[in-house]
Amino acid sequence: MLNPDAGLPGAEIISIGNEVLSGLIQDGNSRFLGERLLSLGVAVQRATVVGDDAESITQALDEALKRVDWVVITGGLGTTHDDITKPVLAGYFHSGYRHDAAVAAGLEQFYKDRGRAVPEAVLGQCEVPETAAVLINEKGTAPGLLFEKDGKRVAALPGVPLEMRHLFEKYLVPMLAPLAGLRVSHRILHTTGVTEAGLWEKVGPPGTLKDVVTVASLPSHLGVRIRLSAAGASDTEVNEKLNAAEAWFRQRAGGWIYATDTDTLENTVGRLLIEKKLTLAVAESCTGGLIGHRITGVPGSSEYFLEGAVTYSNAAKAARLGVPVEMLKRFGAVSEETARTMAEGIRRSAAANIGLAVTGIAGPGGGSGEKPVGLTFIALADAAGTVCERFIFHQDRRRNKERAAQAALDLLRLRLTDGGR
Amino acid sequence: MLNPDAGLPGAEIISIGNEVLSGLIQDGNSRFLGERLLSLGVAVQRATVVGDDAESITQALDEALKRVDWVVITGGLGTTHDDITKPVLAGYFHSGYRHDAAVAAGLEQFYKDRGRAVPEAVLGQCEVPETAAVLINEKGTAPGLLFEKDGKRVAALPGVPLEMRHLFEKYLVPMLAPLAGLRVSHRILHTTGVTEAGLWEKVGPPGTLKDVVTVASLPSHLGVRIRLSAAGASDTEVNEKLNAAEAWFRQRAGGWIYATDTDTLENTVGRLLIEKKLTLAVAESCTGGLIGHRITGVPGSSEYFLEGAVTYSNAAKAARLGVPVEMLKRFGAVSEETARTMAEGIRRSAAANIGLAVTGIAGPGGGSGEKPVGLTFIALADAAGTVCERFIFHQDRRRNKERAAQAALDLLRLRLTDGGR
Repeated sequence: MLNPDAGLPGAEIISIGNEVLSGLIQDGNSRFLGERLLSLGVAVQRATVVGDDAESITQALDEALKRVDWVVITGGLGTTHDDITKPVLAGYFHSGYRHDAAVAAGLEQFYKDRGRAVPEAVLGQCEVPETAAVLINEKGTAPGLLFEKDGKRVAALPGVPLEMRHLFEKYLVPMLAPLAGLRVSHRILHTTGVTEAGLWEKVGPPGTLKDVVTVASLPSHLGVRIRLSAAGASDTEVNEKLNAAEAWFRQRAGGWIYATDTDTLENTVGRLLIEKKLTLAVAESCTGGLIGHRITGVPGSSEYFLEGAVTYSNAAKAARLGVPVEMLKRFGAVSEETARTMAEGIRRSAAANIGLAVTGIAGPGGGSGEKPVGLTFIALADAAGTVCERFIFHQDRRRNKERAAQAALDLLRLRLTDGGR
Repeated sequence: MLNPDAGLPGAEIISIGNEVLSGLIQDGNSRFLGERLLSLGVAVQRATVVGDDAESITQALDEALKRVDWVVITGGLGTTHDDITKPVLAGYFHSGYRHDAAVAAGLEQFYKDRGRAVPEAVLGQCEVPETAAVLINEKGTAPGLLFEKDGKRVAALPGVPLEMRHLFEKYLVPMLAPLAGLRVSHRILHTTGVTEAGLWEKVGPPGTLKDVVTVASLPSHLGVRIRLSAAGASDTEVNEKLNAAEAWFRQRAGGWIYATDTDTLENTVGRLLIEKKLTLAVAESCTGGLIGHRITGVPGSSEYFLEGAVTYSNAAKAARLGVPVEMLKRFGAVSEETARTMAEGIRRSAAANIGLAVTGIAGPGGGSGEKPVGLTFIALADAAGTVCERFIFHQDRRRNKERAAQAALDLLRLRLTDGGR
């Protein structure tokens, strides 16, 4: 991980709201601000959530201003009795109030666009602390506020994510960007089919790579994400560092990397299918439609995806895919034989270039000593023949389904890239 | 919102990790803890995120212990060089280390179950601070730690959500529950098929309900959640309040409520199908398998779900569902005629009691003036005949798919409850 203290100017975030503390809503604002500030070269050193009470807010702000020069507050700027950020900050900065004509005009327009008069309760938004600069909110009714004192800055933004982001980008980014001497950027390499330990065993110690980028790895049940972070004097310098680090990883573990940054496994598979002019059909049992759902999440997937058969019952496996009843009886629905026949069956009946099939025991019921919960067979049939892989996923129903879909899409990806790991 | 200061004992949460501060991962642990602690009658008064450095952790802990008697720390207990929670706490509590045989035995078993020896790097987990009670982690390799001093308690839990929740429920809940004089509980009513404004217009002002419970409503693209919160001297009193409030809402808006608390629409539909001894098959176009995926997310769904046909191409619609090529030409794949024929076709070919079908334009491409992106037809065929509903969802591809699946499952629910809204 990039060390937040590594020469970057620091900031703190304070989120205000009982509804966040009590878990009613997730504080996505702090995550957004953490990521966005770091991309500007400003490191968030602490993020605090406090309730809607004056003492907690004042105390948190006081502590934060002892540590950093910039504090971004979100929430508590609405018009209910819970919303006390404005009076608390006015008190903290010993400020009276003034009427702001620009806010009043904005509210007028906001409600006019919606065919209504400004509600009584909202009119109070026009009264703002005298010592604050007003951040005009075009996406909602609560203006942001910016206080400045002794070289320190405190910005208060509304808690509604859309409005918070709008004011942050419009007013704070231009002020924050010049603060940082350094540019900072990240690249994420998404891998699957390998554990975190297995991945690091294969690539070896980062060695001199650590002088160029900082590396974090984050495992989940679908794979390991590697995040590379680099800092430099210019975007070009930062990109060169990230490219070098990505190349280092690809040389050692390229086969496991299925996408970078916000790209996805289904996008990668879609691009490969288009490139090779191949069509696909899938037969799903335990995944229940998840593979089809992921594939069709990609715009334009109708170009290569013909159809899916969610053959949950044995009757459907027999009728739709031609799996012989004799085979289901002898080997079971969850077997290599059935998986292979499913893949070949959907390929033939859909007249697709590739047939992909999954059958497994998602759990929690249905397992046995010989065939435990999580046992899954994934088969792929194409012009070159049929392959099948066997997995045991050690998780709950939802995660077993998700891992099976991920493994199936990855088997397809590897087949389309000639399988080299 | 329920005021966290309303006479409840307080706690604080500290999350440790640069990856949270920099926005790489969302801190879902604090949300879980905030909600769960409040349900035990313990109010979280502050939640803090700090980076992986000793000074920040020590400072945050020091401050928290001045304000409250209970601090729950998450993160930083793994085995990489970033993970410093254990040594920082050992230092803070002036503690040496000891070897813990129970942790060692647990690790042995954990890796044995996975057919491997305990990796060298993980062995360090057996060394624990002398003054801490050890919380044995059955879901992972990092034990939790519990320190006690001067009547104050500090629990450190791993950051992996599954492991954190496991240790919290097993060790901390029994200690925290007796603390609270007041019981607090919530109930969530999940609605769909109505906007937030429409819902409140229908139910009218909460009136005297506000003396009994606090009410929050949270809209999303899949529906509106209503959260009722009540406090009282006993679980019985709290439950009576919640039951009364739920009854109030059901009387006014019962048809829109599809589930309560952690229950889901697909669970509700599954229960109704079992109750009525009916089987289901689905035909999906724009949703691409999502409906099947949701239905099969329910354990035991094989009892009523026979199969799904993801007929993405027109050829599949014709071959699998018997939609006449002439009909596809004349009315288009996204039309009421096609949707009805799809529902009837899958019902017939799967020999199911109910056939459910969806066809629509998920976007971003494929729309026209006459048939805009988001246009979706949902049809249901059963012994009583075929019904079809038309929707226009005004969102992006992902949300259009999700709204279509939600609306389809809700149409099925209403049909199974005799449709009364």
